[in-house]
Amino acid sequence: MSLTRVQNFSISLDGFGTGDGQSLDAPFGTAGERLHEWMVATRWGRAMFGGTGGTGGVDEAFARQHDESGIGAEIMGAGKFGPPGWHEDSQWKGWWGPNPPFHTPVFVLTHHPRPSIDMEGGTTFHFIDAPPAKALGAAREAAGGLDVRLGGGATVIRDFVAARLVDHMHVVVVPILLGRGVLLWHGLESLERDYAIEAASSPSGVTHVTFTRTGMRS
Amino acid sequence: MSLTRVQNFSISLDGFGTGDGQSLDAPFGTAGERLHEWMVATRWGRAMFGGTGGTGGVDEAFARQHDESGIGAEIMGAGKFGPPGWHEDSQWKGWWGPNPPFHTPVFVLTHHPRPSIDMEGGTTFHFIDAPPAKALGAAREAAGGLDVRLGGGATVIRDFVAARLVDHMHVVVVPILLGRGVLLWHGLESLERDYAIEAASSPSGVTHVTFTRTGMRS
Repeated sequence: MSLTRVQNFSISLDGFGTGDGQSLDAPFGTAGERLHEWMVATRWGRAMFGGTGGTGGVDEAFARQHDESGIGAEIMGAGKFGPPGWHEDSQWKGWWGPNPPFHTPVFVLTHHPRPSIDMEGGTTFHFIDAPPAKALGAAREAAGGLDVRLGGGATVIRDFVAARLVDHMHVVVVPILLGRGVLLWHGLESLERDYAIEAASSPSGVTHVTFTRTGMRS
Repeated sequence: MSLTRVQNFSISLDGFGTGDGQSLDAPFGTAGERLHEWMVATRWGRAMFGGTGGTGGVDEAFARQHDESGIGAEIMGAGKFGPPGWHEDSQWKGWWGPNPPFHTPVFVLTHHPRPSIDMEGGTTFHFIDAPPAKALGAAREAAGGLDVRLGGGATVIRDFVAARLVDHMHVVVVPILLGRGVLLWHGLESLERDYAIEAASSPSGVTHVTFTRTGMRS
């Protein structure tokens, strides 16, 4: 069965998934890059930036799932694809260079659809203006029986969880307090009724919290 | 040196330290008792309610510190001492019966001071209307060189942390989403700059997060 999954989504201890002040120079907002230090420190993270070395513990085990867990398509919000206003730049092709690290169809949710873009390495960006269930339908069809990853940001994950469309979610709680940004948990009261929840803290200081759906899918 | 400590303070994954709807029948609010299931399941918790058995792992190790870590006085908010309106009941002596589990002087912060109450077992309740630094001064004097525990609720802890008066804090993140109540982290942005933070997840599902002050005391 094709599952809808969230992987490696980092939030601060006070629940913010994106820092304030997102821009071309600060894709995760002014403080948000600190949300991802744990990932950049892993072997997987080092390799992604062309480096070597890195940690090999629980952080690495989770981070590496990004590449090795049978994802056939991705859905992301407009805020993950580019800085505010990217839709006014007809040449914008995402943050990730010519060979983005997705290697699948990627459905970008936007109120400003544009023609699809084929990138190197198997990534194709599609731009759709659709509510969660409809976007998931398109992604699932493109995934060819594999899972669909929900890439974020926080607003998109929240909307899909609220619509009861997420089967598995891996959230990384980072011990910093951002004080502002987008709250992942807003409006998701009693979520624990639908999921088995595990927590695994890492020597890096972060805690990996996983949600596995136990109730019926909607 | 006498430290100011927070112990065993439970919050939901979305950061609420107290559920909504606190009352005589629901001291932690309508959903808040679920914040303390981890503690009640320990040997220490079972014994507190006159039972036997219970878990003996990391939850027990933390819970038991309540009794065994050199606390000489406690500070708590009015909302911890009684249900809304307790100050109108001249006979109210707290939730805990004739022998409260503190066994030290306890300073209750209230806008309605009343005469002190001597209880069995060494607990004396004092009622003061004072800002954090002044309340801490009184408690520290009463503690006779031992540490001062900040008992909560969330508003009181937040105020003392914001005033840079807390040396060590143990917060227990429980994997439930309450959606409402008092947010522990509100207004404490960048707290991580002043503390070394560790996280230890427990098989019970909760994560123990400890904050040890690294910077100067104010």
